[in-house]
Amino acid sequence: MLSEFDLIARYFTRPVRSGRIPLGVGDDCALLAPSAGMQLAISTDMLVSGRHFFADADPLQLGHKCLAVNLSDLAAMGAAPLAFTLALALPDADEAWLAPFAKGLLALADRHGCELIGGDTTKGPLTISITVLGEVPPGQALRRDGAQPGDDVWISGTLGDARLALAGYLREIALPADALEQAGTRMHAPTPRAELGVALRGIAHAAIDISDGLCGDLGHILERSRVGATLQVDALPRGPVLESQDLSLARRFCLSGGDDYELCFTVPAARRAEVLDAARSAGTPVRLVGRIDAEPGLRLLDAHGAPLGLPLASFDHFAQP
Amino acid sequence: MLSEFDLIARYFTRPVRSGRIPLGVGDDCALLAPSAGMQLAISTDMLVSGRHFFADADPLQLGHKCLAVNLSDLAAMGAAPLAFTLALALPDADEAWLAPFAKGLLALADRHGCELIGGDTTKGPLTISITVLGEVPPGQALRRDGAQPGDDVWISGTLGDARLALAGYLREIALPADALEQAGTRMHAPTPRAELGVALRGIAHAAIDISDGLCGDLGHILERSRVGATLQVDALPRGPVLESQDLSLARRFCLSGGDDYELCFTVPAARRAEVLDAARSAGTPVRLVGRIDAEPGLRLLDAHGAPLGLPLASFDHFAQP
Repeated sequence: MLSEFDLIARYFTRPVRSGRIPLGVGDDCALLAPSAGMQLAISTDMLVSGRHFFADADPLQLGHKCLAVNLSDLAAMGAAPLAFTLALALPDADEAWLAPFAKGLLALADRHGCELIGGDTTKGPLTISITVLGEVPPGQALRRDGAQPGDDVWISGTLGDARLALAGYLREIALPADALEQAGTRMHAPTPRAELGVALRGIAHAAIDISDGLCGDLGHILERSRVGATLQVDALPRGPVLESQDLSLARRFCLSGGDDYELCFTVPAARRAEVLDAARSAGTPVRLVGRIDAEPGLRLLDAHGAPLGLPLASFDHFAQP
Repeated sequence: MLSEFDLIARYFTRPVRSGRIPLGVGDDCALLAPSAGMQLAISTDMLVSGRHFFADADPLQLGHKCLAVNLSDLAAMGAAPLAFTLALALPDADEAWLAPFAKGLLALADRHGCELIGGDTTKGPLTISITVLGEVPPGQALRRDGAQPGDDVWISGTLGDARLALAGYLREIALPADALEQAGTRMHAPTPRAELGVALRGIAHAAIDISDGLCGDLGHILERSRVGATLQVDALPRGPVLESQDLSLARRFCLSGGDDYELCFTVPAARRAEVLDAARSAGTPVRLVGRIDAEPGLRLLDAHGAPLGLPLASFDHFAQP
């Protein structure tokens, strides 16, 4: 069996490629040389087996996902990825799990030029914690507290297919195998909108990534910015698999499904063309779905402009049974 | 019961005091403005209940310890603490545990001017992962690969009392209650040698913190620096409780006990006076315990200069039964 040191050496130690990393894995600390004048954006997530992912989750996809959710936080800040650390508790040093996990993790890291610079491995219930570091010019970070009345509300990509896949796995909903597989890809392998986040610097007033469901996450922007919003619920970009489901289910999963890892951002209405240019340059579809109001609260309208009253709840890790 | 958001708000959100932190807890990322020209030192640790601490560990001491072990990594790099993130999996949102945990954690953070800037809380088996960030001038970090033949080997503080306490708790050794309590403080509430680490910049060639036992950790310096060492085993600074134990046990716990969080560092023999000045300015005792040799391997000598053959093993999380 591999020791802790062998494990780190075999799966998580690679030559550092970035000139910004004078020292990577293998010392008491890693060293990072930030670009002159840039601020660092830092985010930490923890994923627990049986809670954030199924215990038998495919390790290749899991490696991808656990970095993707952190890159999504950088994107929501308009920060470009630099580096990350990985803390990993494992029940045993199982190479048949570790090899694909490291492969999925490092493939996504390479795609975004985000270097693994350190971390910790230990024995314990399967738990993965990543801290990611990015950089953003001072004053250009996309914060939650910058939304202003009159801003448009935009969404990247599509919503709801990840929640639909979960419903399929939990047998809340019967889905054909090919539909479940397609939706499952959105749940297992989300695409962090890193390029879009950077392209929206200087354009968006506020942004957040949608991890706990659109209503809850947009709610954080509203609360921090002391504003309200009106959403055109039927303008929300539904996932292609969700599109074929019952309308009421489709609305609900778009509004509060969670696990989407799309960006929700607000931009002055005068700058629509710039948003579309940014989206084109990032290769990421975006859609205009509502507006920010001075009046507090979140108003949901259907395609005819009629109010929708939907029971919605954001995900809370301690509120679950 | 408190929700995840309530928890974070109540225990882990405070006004940011450092001018280096434009944005703290509560957005997708925190923002950190590094001092011009400094490099960042970054370290991540993960502590698992039942493995790194007893499940019924005092939460106040545990809060202290889980940050202390990370500050110790910064110290071993010569980096001054700036900020940290906390990822916390908890079986339930138990305020009787959380309140003292946060108190112990934040008291140590305040003592070192190290700001809590973000993190994650989730439900799961009790697991604590901290990522700490510090800063150090370029070229002055105390790395593991800088030791040179002729360097002295120094140790801060004392060794072995933490391991002795563990032996007491596990009933491997019978200890009087007051001795166990005194030694237990070293195990539960280690003192990170932050000031000493910074004071050794430009003086020490190499440094490491002793978490897995002196022999194993010094072994990392020897391996990375491609050198060997000779230790005067009876010159090692024994913990005051260990001092009254059997000599062979005292030697063994000093050499491979672990959980000491002292610094082991190497310095050219011509700079002894500077080491003593640095130690005095940091208020931390240090002791000269050996030298670095060109010949690979670690040689252990007793007080008469005779070789000691001791069976030693460094701690490996996956090698335990």
